[in-house]
Amino acid sequence: MADINLQEIHDLLISIAHEAGKMMLTATPSYLDSGTKKNSADLVTETDKAIETMVSTRLQSSYPTYSFIGEETFISGETVLTDAPTFICDPVDGTTNFVHAFPAFCISLGFTVNKIPSVGVIYNPFLDELYTGIKGHGSFVTRHGGEKLRLPLKKEPEPLGELSTCLVGAEWGSDRTGNNFDVRHQVFVKLCAAKENGGAMVHSIRCVGSAALNLAYVAAGQQDVFWEGGCWAWDVAAGWCILVEAGGIMIIDFFSVT
Amino acid sequence: MADINLQEIHDLLISIAHEAGKMMLTATPSYLDSGTKKNSADLVTETDKAIETMVSTRLQSSYPTYSFIGEETFISGETVLTDAPTFICDPVDGTTNFVHAFPAFCISLGFTVNKIPSVGVIYNPFLDELYTGIKGHGSFVTRHGGEKLRLPLKKEPEPLGELSTCLVGAEWGSDRTGNNFDVRHQVFVKLCAAKENGGAMVHSIRCVGSAALNLAYVAAGQQDVFWEGGCWAWDVAAGWCILVEAGGIMIIDFFSVT
Repeated sequence: MADINLQEIHDLLISIAHEAGKMMLTATPSYLDSGTKKNSADLVTETDKAIETMVSTRLQSSYPTYSFIGEETFISGETVLTDAPTFICDPVDGTTNFVHAFPAFCISLGFTVNKIPSVGVIYNPFLDELYTGIKGHGSFVTRHGGEKLRLPLKKEPEPLGELSTCLVGAEWGSDRTGNNFDVRHQVFVKLCAAKENGGAMVHSIRCVGSAALNLAYVAAGQQDVFWEGGCWAWDVAAGWCILVEAGGIMIIDFFSVT
Repeated sequence: MADINLQEIHDLLISIAHEAGKMMLTATPSYLDSGTKKNSADLVTETDKAIETMVSTRLQSSYPTYSFIGEETFISGETVLTDAPTFICDPVDGTTNFVHAFPAFCISLGFTVNKIPSVGVIYNPFLDELYTGIKGHGSFVTRHGGEKLRLPLKKEPEPLGELSTCLVGAEWGSDRTGNNFDVRHQVFVKLCAAKENGGAMVHSIRCVGSAALNLAYVAAGQQDVFWEGGCWAWDVAAGWCILVEAGGIMIIDFFSVT
């Protein structure tokens, strides 16, 4: 795999991300009654599917031998992440935001080799914010077409302090029953509650509704921690590379789409 | 009070908001050990105080007979909102975000006559987003110095539907013990939980950490609802005017700083 040009892949993913951004901004989101989605809190739109088709078509054209995993075409029990060079795509991360025009949605494009996140591109078209990273070469943000800034943005980033000094990203997600939901809201309460009540007393919790952007925000030093009760590969592949290249740490039980 | 020129007040508040924005962006936030704050989740910085001083000085210069209420100079049990023309200022709404460089902080400048919010100006300097409203004359947003757009932004805003179709803004706040905290997280769970579990199954909850911006987002149609367990006048005075002028509804038990 030594002949893989990560810079070329990075440049192509940025070009694709910008095309996807235009599709998002010109689309009128429409709900789909999709059998693949679990409930009324797990939204998917025509735009999600159209963008994933565009992405996979362009990648197939340039890299016909590489694997592709996308949120909209993933098949449970069949789609498997391997050591092969693999593009991992979430066409619209934060679809609920997209539907509501809440300005925190993005395309998330990751590239793995030997299952290691090696390129990451996250683009929020509404705010024109582009987060990028290449393994071994750092990660960056470009806002409103301005200067490309190295992450983290803070001039003198300090080691992570006590949890009580942290701004924590976390999400309610779309599982709204059972153990997953119970654990999630109990974690929220435990994070927020005062120390005398057994809590961590974090500065606060932010819920922006996009796992990819949450990781980018941690990479940028705007959040100290992001906690998620469950992720898919397309939620984290791009952000993982960007986060690690910014000096952040990813702690995860496993990385698999099976 | 018929001789009050709301347009002139509106223009002055915008000028002041831009000056405050520059102060925020050039500041290095520093924590203050202030006796007026309750705990480690309720932050105040030198910048909050410096901006409020600038705001009150400029307003005093132009409108020496009008009243002024500011978050940093409010005295519990003494400061009272009256029917007199009154400026109401939150110098940095979202101070926790400001300290963490999370891009959702703003200055919130309201003006009331007979206790009715009559002018509102909310400015987020990080995103260069300006929300404004004048009673009887509509509300607007200007982003990145671009076109001034009338609120709500949606071309065909629909009446609010079922709560289950809503994106809801809500905040954890700085009260982390006792009844206020319990009610708050129980409301969150009730909003999110599946209907079969007695919940409202909202699309999701967003926590951006600024009451003023939450109201602006509802005015812009980016959130459907904002719920807050307790507010001060400076949290809502500007957003109230902007929201109502955009066709939104404010439901509140009382409006008093006593």
